Amino acid sequence: MKLTRRVKEILSWYESDNPGTKANLARILMEGKLGGTGRLVILPVDQGFEHGPARSFAPNPAAYDPRYHFELAIEAGLSAYAAPLGMIEAGAATYAGAIPTILKVNSSNSLSTTKDQAVTGTVSDALRLGCSAIGFTIYPGSEYQFEMMEELRELAEEAKAAGLAVVVWSYPRGPNLDKTAETALDICAYAAHMAALLGAHIIKVKPPTEAISLDAAKKTYEKSPVPDISQLSGRIKHITQACFGGRRIVVFSGGEAGTAESIVEMAKGIHAGGGNGSIIGRNTFQRPKEEALKLLSDIVAVYKSSN
Amino acid sequence: MKLTRRVKEILSWYESDNPGTKANLARILMEGKLGGTGRLVILPVDQGFEHGPARSFAPNPAAYDPRYHFELAIEAGLSAYAAPLGMIEAGAATYAGAIPTILKVNSSNSLSTTKDQAVTGTVSDALRLGCSAIGFTIYPGSEYQFEMMEELRELAEEAKAAGLAVVVWSYPRGPNLDKTAETALDICAYAAHMAALLGAHIIKVKPPTEAISLDAAKKTYEKSPVPDISQLSGRIKHITQACFGGRRIVVFSGGEAGTAESIVEMAKGIHAGGGNGSIIGRNTFQRPKEEALKLLSDIVAVYKSSN
Amino acid sequence: MKLTRRVKEILSWYESDNPGTKANLARILMEGKLGGTGRLVILPVDQGFEHGPARSFAPNPAAYDPRYHFELAIEAGLSAYAAPLGMIEAGAATYAGAIPTILKVNSSNSLSTTKDQAVTGTVSDALRLGCSAIGFTIYPGSEYQFEMMEELRELAEEAKAAGLAVVVWSYPRGPNLDKTAETALDICAYAAHMAALLGAHIIKVKPPTEAISLDAAKKTYEKSPVPDISQLSGRIKHITQACFGGRRIVVFSGGEAGTAESIVEMAKGIHAGGGNGSIIGRNTFQRPKEEALKLLSDIVAVYKSSN
Amino acid sequence: MKLTRRVKEILSWYESDNPGTKANLARILMEGKLGGTGRLVILPVDQGFEHGPARSFAPNPAAYDPRYHFELAIEAGLSAYAAPLGMIEAGAATYAGAIPTILKVNSSNSLSTTKDQAVTGTVSDALRLGCSAIGFTIYPGSEYQFEMMEELRELAEEAKAAGLAVVVWSYPRGPNLDKTAETALDICAYAAHMAALLGAHIIKVKPPTEAISLDAAKKTYEKSPVPDISQLSGRIKHITQACFGGRRIVVFSGGEAGTAESIVEMAKGIHAGGGNGSIIGRNTFQRPKEEALKLLSDIVAVYKSSN
Amino acid sequence: MKLTRRVKEILSWYESDNPGTKANLARILMEGKLGGTGRLVILPVDQGFEHGPARSFAPNPAAYDPRYHFELAIEAGLSAYAAPLGMIEAGAATYAGAIPTILKVNSSNSLSTTKDQAVTGTVSDALRLGCSAIGFTIYPGSEYQFEMMEELRELAEEAKAAGLAVVVWSYPRGPNLDKTAETALDICAYAAHMAALLGAHIIKVKPPTEAISLDAAKKTYEKSPVPDISQLSGRIKHITQACFGGRRIVVFSGGEAGTAESIVEMAKGIHAGGGNGSIIGRNTFQRPKEEALKLLSDIVAVYKSSN
Repeated sequence: MKLTRRVKEILSWYESDNPGTKANLARILMEGKLGGTGRLVILPVDQGFEHGPARSFAPNPAAYDPRYHFELAIEAGLSAYAAPLGMIEAGAATYAGAIPTILKVNSSNSLSTTKDQAVTGTVSDALRLGCSAIGFTIYPGSEYQFEMMEELRELAEEAKAAGLAVVVWSYPRGPNLDKTAETALDICAYAAHMAALLGAHIIKVKPPTEAISLDAAKKTYEKSPVPDISQLSGRIKHITQACFGGRRIVVFSGGEAGTAESIVEMAKGIHAGGGNGSIIGRNTFQRPKEEALKLLSDIVAVYKSSN
Repeated sequence: MKLTRRVKEILSWYESDNPGTKANLARILMEGKLGGTGRLVILPVDQGFEHGPARSFAPNPAAYDPRYHFELAIEAGLSAYAAPLGMIEAGAATYAGAIPTILKVNSSNSLSTTKDQAVTGTVSDALRLGCSAIGFTIYPGSEYQFEMMEELRELAEEAKAAGLAVVVWSYPRGPNLDKTAETALDICAYAAHMAALLGAHIIKVKPPTEAISLDAAKKTYEKSPVPDISQLSGRIKHITQACFGGRRIVVFSGGEAGTAESIVEMAKGIHAGGGNGSIIGRNTFQRPKEEALKLLSDIVAVYKSSN
Repeated sequence: MKLTRRVKEILSWYESDNPGTKANLARILMEGKLGGTGRLVILPVDQGFEHGPARSFAPNPAAYDPRYHFELAIEAGLSAYAAPLGMIEAGAATYAGAIPTILKVNSSNSLSTTKDQAVTGTVSDALRLGCSAIGFTIYPGSEYQFEMMEELRELAEEAKAAGLAVVVWSYPRGPNLDKTAETALDICAYAAHMAALLGAHIIKVKPPTEAISLDAAKKTYEKSPVPDISQLSGRIKHITQACFGGRRIVVFSGGEAGTAESIVEMAKGIHAGGGNGSIIGRNTFQRPKEEALKLLSDIVAVYKSSN
Repeated sequence: MKLTRRVKEILSWYESDNPGTKANLARILMEGKLGGTGRLVILPVDQGFEHGPARSFAPNPAAYDPRYHFELAIEAGLSAYAAPLGMIEAGAATYAGAIPTILKVNSSNSLSTTKDQAVTGTVSDALRLGCSAIGFTIYPGSEYQFEMMEELRELAEEAKAAGLAVVVWSYPRGPNLDKTAETALDICAYAAHMAALLGAHIIKVKPPTEAISLDAAKKTYEKSPVPDISQLSGRIKHITQACFGGRRIVVFSGGEAGTAESIVEMAKGIHAGGGNGSIIGRNTFQRPKEEALKLLSDIVAVYKSSN
Repeated sequence: MKLTRRVKEILSWYESDNPGTKANLARILMEGKLGGTGRLVILPVDQGFEHGPARSFAPNPAAYDPRYHFELAIEAGLSAYAAPLGMIEAGAATYAGAIPTILKVNSSNSLSTTKDQAVTGTVSDALRLGCSAIGFTIYPGSEYQFEMMEELRELAEEAKAAGLAVVVWSYPRGPNLDKTAETALDICAYAAHMAALLGAHIIKVKPPTEAISLDAAKKTYEKSPVPDISQLSGRIKHITQACFGGRRIVVFSGGEAGTAESIVEMAKGIHAGGGNGSIIGRNTFQRPKEEALKLLSDIVAVYKSSN
């Protein structure tokens, strides 16, 4: 597999990483229909943990079977597939080598009363299951944020030493953050920046709104030269700034269930703003497979268009 | 011992496990009167820890002696025997090789003021005692759920590396769950799914009622194609869906003390719904031994009938 | 030293233990005047930690010197001597091999505001000091009960691997237990049973009263065939049932300071009920040595009488 | 590189350290325009973590790129560059050997609700990234102060064994300290002294005000011969006393954004009081690069003037 | 160095310790002007941590320099010098072998809101710095007492294995203890006894008052034969009883700043009661050096007088 110039450039951003980690990043960046473009679309299936099985899979019961998701990701030509331990264990041998996998190593659920997650997988699990990366969620702003960051530090250090990549889901929440704040532009940028500072290779945040939440930040956004934030593309561009001036891969979640049109529209904004891609679950596996493949094909097409 | 086609099929679901763990799963699946059928009946004796010795054993004082339970399980031709450390230590040598044992490695008691358990056994204990599996209880929804899941992660990882199987008791409880919720269909399915995601080989839940507890889940159960949940068999079928579309072994507890008829009736529902079997304690060892053997024989007969 | 039939029988109960642990149990069971009978009297000196030095030793100032207690136990022909780290360190070399010692590895004190203990000794300490066993207190029912059980699990696992025996002081207390409950029959039996389940070789509880504390247990004690609990011997018999139907060694503390007659009377009840012996501190070392030796001689005589 | 007499003298203060640590201290002391003088100016870039990316870098968007800061520090001829994990990872290879780096191994953020920090880097990280030192913040007076000091103890012990230097940011805050107290002279001196007692090689505190905060300390400052504290230089001199009578390197943070004049003025006070230098972030990287270089040049000139 | 009969006798009390630990105890007991007498005077300098640098050292600014204290202890012919990590690091090489040092491995400060200390040094630190012992403070009665005792257990076990001695500062405080209780005779005796039980070689307590604090203890002190507690010598004698009947070394702190006469007077009481010596900081290093040497000379003279 000959790496493209763009992928080589992206790998050069991760100059402190060992060849093993670079190889795993390259596997993700060279996989599927977007292979070589520097863009990526990832299928995440942690909805069962977060919302329960029926809310996740009853709309499309074939998706109860963990093999369904491997096949969906492979058929759609995606870049990687991310899921918790049991889901990966259930297909890791059958689909070994067929698509890069990301082991999601912490998880929450709808029964929880705290803004925390349980660590439910390890680097050893990722290695024995042939994964290319671990995935970890932090909740910046939560009462548990420091513990979560320290868990991430331990897992990330171990992952990097073992030649794995580290994907960080950075979702702000906590006593100082209301619903608006959780997706406010300043808060999303802050969350993305902290993930970068914590050593993430790939950063996942939600697409930000126009809101500015922290009083201390408002002045800055009024006075300083930030991109046009009335457009999604401008806000995405600001997020990429926050990711080391564009020198870290950043992908955006698909958000709540939406129409195919709205999802493709969002991908266009991400693309235009220089984001690296989408990580999109519910909106694909809850649709009948053919619909999902069509939607993913449309999204991929957006990202394949020239920069 | 020649494995049956059905057992080979079940083992194939656990494609990421090492031969040691597969062998131990096979030992349980090939043991006793249901050996080879893919169904199983397990005798669990953790009542002494949970409710105290007199409430557990005074109705049938022979059961104070740990050897009684080994013998009951062996004579009844069951699939495995599960108990806490002391109970297993007290018979592990005498009955070595006579029946697969499951070391229950965490325990609560009636004096507790928290929805948590103490970790009371280790993988090393299980190995030195010749056990085939460890058993672990989680309380999804409890304030301690994340700690419990993390304890399970550590023990399960160690168990799998040592070639043991992992049995998870998944009993929802906590501040967001009232008594009805603890056995509600959506909550049981959620609990079973989380156990699967956490890497359990065998999942134990309570037989669910028709109740749907989470508001966010109600819409799903109204709109989506789920099995007929007015029947136990339909509810069991939904639970098996939640266990990776039927690709994880799921067994159901016998519940509170009941009549022999009601217990056999429940087994019929579990059988019809595609559940893998029963895990039944109080309802057997609190009866005189001959009555218990008769009841277990009837339950086994239900599961032996053709699918 | 030729083991008696009775000691061999008792050792057979501990079928999962390694020869090292069996040898240490045998050392205790073959020691002193009761050697070989299957009965035992142990001298525990943790009063200094629990109540302070003056309350413990001022009545008999010779007892301030740690050597006093070694000598008392040896002269009285007792089975073993149990004490915290400093007390054992202060005589372990002088009296090496003269009497089996039990290192008490956790301790509380009268200044404490919580129902917990500090772990104050280790298995390594016990080994370097030539001890035959470790001793550990749990408070079933306390807010700290699970932590204490987990500490016991770790220490007991390590002790067993190193060929030591494990003695568990099981003293119920906590928010759900009033003073009456702490020595109620059902609670004492429960406490003894939990110690057995946690893997104790020797269980120490307080002599129970007639009270039944847990509502859920009252029905059981009314309906089921339990021994005559109006007599101490009947209550002791029930406790031995709770200790795996009599297949674990159980000894009883001497309780508050009493008359020599009342203490001997209690030993008679323990003996008649099939208890294995007494563990008696304050009532011996707070008396002048000659009185203490006379009292211990009388207690030993009770246990030496035929079963 | 021939060490100056002054640098040799400073190294002699650290008489318990191994040659590796001394070499790294020497690297910092011999680097840049102040090399050999015993004075130093350090560029710290942890503002992104503490205040968010936009508040830190939007005033000078080139600073979003981690390479900017390496280059600023190198071009300005500074002594060292300090930053959290991700920032160092992003340039460690490109600028390997070009300037000593200090890995800031704990971090807080503006979303936090507690006076604590997350440990976000390790000694292993520092070693693989070629750093000369680790940096660690303590909050003396915080409810978390003992945990922070214990984290520091572990990291510092490991760092020293690995031949790294240890830089401690000592920022008093907590329930007993109001805003005035946080920079009061007695409190700053106390904070600096504790850092020295904890084994820091380089101590960073804020420039103190004239306030005396602790009642118990007021008498001392009235009665005892302390330097003239109405002048910054006198207060700085008192801080150097608190740092083992001037036998530990102590540097002062630049504080809130200020005019170039005020910053240079402060450096003069530090210089006159015998402080070892400045650690100055916001006031440099938020200015256009040429302005920043001019300001840093002026600061360096202050420290280069004869003592 | 030929050990005296008295030192040999004292070493014999520590019969469980390895030769390394005995050698370090001997080094302290044979050092300085009291070498060989079985009495000792130790210089502790943790005031900087506990009260801050100005309150500690401003009265005698030469004492800001850590070397001052090494020299004071050496010139005064004391038995040992005790201080936290940074203070020892700053002179350990210069004064290597010149006086036994005790590394104080935990520390509190005046900004703290809890009755706890941070562990700020390790056994490895003590070894690399050539110390003869570690020093550790416990607060019996504090909400943190069990954690502190467990930290001590770990450090003491490690220290003893490495041939170091263990010095325990036992200072009662906590919710059940008012100011009077903290130095009450029964509480001081209890604190000293607990330190002995925890395995301390040298015990440091405050000189007790006549108060008896615990109600449960009052009866004992009225009824039982305790020394005449109206005299300091009688109270000291009771403390030595509590230290294993005089078979553990016990030293007494000097207390708040006092006149030279009062301090010498106190030493006379300690000496008369059979205490092993004084550990005296503030009252020496806050005086001009010549005064301090005179005072220490007077104290030493008290202890040198025949028993």
